[in-house]
Amino acid sequence: MSTIGKVITCKAAVTYGPGEPLVIEEIQVEPPQALEIRVKITHTSLCHSDIHFWELKDGPILFPRIFGHEASGIVESVGELVTDFQPGDHVLPLFMGECTKCKNCKSRKTNACENYSPSGRPGLMSSDQRTRFSKDGKPIFHFLGTSTFSEYTVVEHGRLVKVNPLAPLDKICLLSCGVSTGLGATWNTAKVEAGSSVAIFGLGTVGLAVAEGARIAGASKIIGVDLNNEKLGKAKTFGITDFLNPSEYDKPISQVIMEMTGGGVDYSFECVGNVNLMQTAFDSCHAGYGVCVLCGVVTDSTSVFSRHPVYFLGGRSLTGTLFGNFKGVTQLPNLVEKYMHKEFQLDEFVTHELPFSEINEAFRLLLDGKSLRCVLHVGNT
Amino acid sequence: MSTIGKVITCKAAVTYGPGEPLVIEEIQVEPPQALEIRVKITHTSLCHSDIHFWELKDGPILFPRIFGHEASGIVESVGELVTDFQPGDHVLPLFMGECTKCKNCKSRKTNACENYSPSGRPGLMSSDQRTRFSKDGKPIFHFLGTSTFSEYTVVEHGRLVKVNPLAPLDKICLLSCGVSTGLGATWNTAKVEAGSSVAIFGLGTVGLAVAEGARIAGASKIIGVDLNNEKLGKAKTFGITDFLNPSEYDKPISQVIMEMTGGGVDYSFECVGNVNLMQTAFDSCHAGYGVCVLCGVVTDSTSVFSRHPVYFLGGRSLTGTLFGNFKGVTQLPNLVEKYMHKEFQLDEFVTHELPFSEINEAFRLLLDGKSLRCVLHVGNT
Ligand SMILES: NC(=O)c1ccc[n+]([C@@H]2O[C@H](COP(=O)([O-])OP(=O)(O)OC[C@H]3O[C@@H](n4cnc5c(N)ncnc54)[C@H](O)[C@@H]3O)[C@@H](O)[C@H]2O)c1
Ligand SMILES: NC(=O)c1ccc[n+]([C@@H]2O[C@H](COP(=O)([O-])OP(=O)(O)OC[C@H]3O[C@@H](n4cnc5c(N)ncnc54)[C@H](O)[C@@H]3O)[C@@H](O)[C@H]2O)c1
Ligand SMILES: [Zn+2]
Ligand SMILES: [Zn+2]
Ligand SMILES: [Zn+2]
Ligand SMILES: [Zn+2]
Repeated sequence: MSTIGKVITCKAAVTYGPGEPLVIEEIQVEPPQALEIRVKITHTSLCHSDIHFWELKDGPILFPRIFGHEASGIVESVGELVTDFQPGDHVLPLFMGECTKCKNCKSRKTNACENYSPSGRPGLMSSDQRTRFSKDGKPIFHFLGTSTFSEYTVVEHGRLVKVNPLAPLDKICLLSCGVSTGLGATWNTAKVEAGSSVAIFGLGTVGLAVAEGARIAGASKIIGVDLNNEKLGKAKTFGITDFLNPSEYDKPISQVIMEMTGGGVDYSFECVGNVNLMQTAFDSCHAGYGVCVLCGVVTDSTSVFSRHPVYFLGGRSLTGTLFGNFKGVTQLPNLVEKYMHKEFQLDEFVTHELPFSEINEAFRLLLDGKSLRCVLHVGNT
Repeated sequence: MSTIGKVITCKAAVTYGPGEPLVIEEIQVEPPQALEIRVKITHTSLCHSDIHFWELKDGPILFPRIFGHEASGIVESVGELVTDFQPGDHVLPLFMGECTKCKNCKSRKTNACENYSPSGRPGLMSSDQRTRFSKDGKPIFHFLGTSTFSEYTVVEHGRLVKVNPLAPLDKICLLSCGVSTGLGATWNTAKVEAGSSVAIFGLGTVGLAVAEGARIAGASKIIGVDLNNEKLGKAKTFGITDFLNPSEYDKPISQVIMEMTGGGVDYSFECVGNVNLMQTAFDSCHAGYGVCVLCGVVTDSTSVFSRHPVYFLGGRSLTGTLFGNFKGVTQLPNLVEKYMHKEFQLDEFVTHELPFSEINEAFRLLLDGKSLRCVLHVGNT
């Protein structure tokens, strides 16, 4: 029996307060409005950004809420005016949307769509400032316009991309955030060249995808920095040539890197979301031309990156990236093709798989530093 | 009678303490040692960096000292092992030297020579850690390896470039610092493209040379910001399309620029040396791709540039430049040729000319915001 046009009752993992365990609930998902699409989520993984915002205590109160933004799925139904998606399409949700029409979308310099940026009014659909989720008539807030911790979700038209239906949905879900962010940080943001030296701070999925990108770009030295020695095993798979645990040194790790590289790396990447580590990453790159790329998300609004201007004057650069500067709608299909042609490693990031009902265990694994990505099987394909 | 191989007694403007008026004194200048060159300075201008270091109270005590780094001259004699300069060559001293052999000199990414950087041991010649200047047997410290406020100076081999002898020495002295820095900041560091929008903070020689560079690169909007309305006149000559005096607005000037440009400029440049203004310049550039280039020198060691990392995450970049990323030895001769072919405006930066003996008046003019560059006529050519 078709669900098109009807409210769907399904399971979702709902968060009722900062840092509280998620509760699997039966919720109601409204049909998509004009220029919206309702997606059956088949797989969702857990990215550290979900954890940051799940834990976040300051900021507007947006509970109950459905988190999740790294996922894959199949179109269930489309709203009015949607002509380029149809039920059955295999799709990835995009927390960085792409309208393809605004000034930023037309610029080759940025992927920050003016209409579907992650800083858009959070938790509500933009057309009517309402939610499409509810339980017993009470609204449940969205997250990053994606809310993938649910069997069904509704996304705006610019926040979805159709991909090759032959691509395994239980793997390509990682391309809707973490792995694309890391690959793109090297390829699109830093533009790492063959022979360069790279330092990566934080060897989670984002950091190791930076390594994978750098390895493919031909970097000759890829230094990985993490406090957790267990990260070393997987690190080698992704091309890390030198592993440093700052707790094992009695001098600043930036100094160790300066010495190892004769003056600092060409490119450094912060993939944790820690302001002190961002400063260390900046200090670790070459005074004359080093580029430090911030990937980590800092949710504490009082943190500041601080350095004397002279550190920039010599030629160091500091920049950042969201979603690895990929334009989701126009570039993700090709990234999926590259995966299909085995041009980069993706399956290796999946260290755990669990049924959706065990989502709290997935949180635990990531928080404890045990997993790279735990893929949750949400719906049957 | 030849002076070669002999101590020369000549006039120099000596500073005896921070911020103290310069004293024209008879001093002794030793012959050049191996890989050194003695230069008869014909013209020197005054750059704000001279003022910064002349005023500077903290840091090592390096007085008496001879300041000056923006100048032109003629080789008087060469030390042993110098084969590519000879007496009579027209030359520019380089505070950013270029040995052409070190790792950095071989890299196309930086002009920060490892052997002749401005952060080298200050005030002394590197071969023997002594000075070549003295008065009554007491040493006088060098400055930036150039010390051009003197009728004769001795520089290390990598800190000098030979240029077309037909080029007017009373103009091309400006190419040995300020004008090259501004032109290079746009052409080499930011790589401003045709059609871009630019904001320049501080319309002294460096800032207006940025404007000139941006004008030539085809920038369509060049916003100039200065507290001194007298800068407006010259600003137009160098392509400034919009002039803003922050004291005439009751909101932050970054907000004014955001509104004027629909979200910020493509490139912003700080050309004052004020940390708050650096932050304002950063805030004025586009969140998704704006590049802020720091040119100003901050001598206060406790100042810090501070911003929340989220301002970088969206794609803004912060970087800086020394000498506009020009490699002095290999690139300045060509820049002089470009001037000879009238490819950029240079004469227009010379607003005042004075005899060397009136150097304190040149300081006054720059401090009071009355001059762009005051060229001091030091020796007869
Ligand atoms: N910019 C973007 O578009 C984007 C996209 C995805 C994730 N992120 C952010 O990237 C960061 C990493 O995400 P992830 O999913 O890879 O996280 P993760 O939890 O998988 O990995 C984080 C790693 O950092 C290490 N770490 C923690 N503190 C450290 C320290 N002080 N020094 C060294 N290592 C340390 C941990 O041991 C872990 O290996 C998060 O801040 C996340 O929000 C940003
Ligand atoms: N990076 C380099 O290689 C390099 C080279 C040369 C000079 N510099 C530095 O560049 C800076 C400019 O040098 P210059 O010779 O052009 O100086 P200048 O004195 O000719 O010009 C400075 C200008 O800034 C303006 N100004 C001062 N405070 C301001 C404020 N708060 N807001 C707006 N405008 C303000 C002044 O009115 C003046 O027009 C100095 O810090 C100098 O040390 C750096
Ligand atoms: Zn993510
Ligand atoms: Zn757009
Ligand atoms: Zn060198
Ligand atoms: Zn200067």
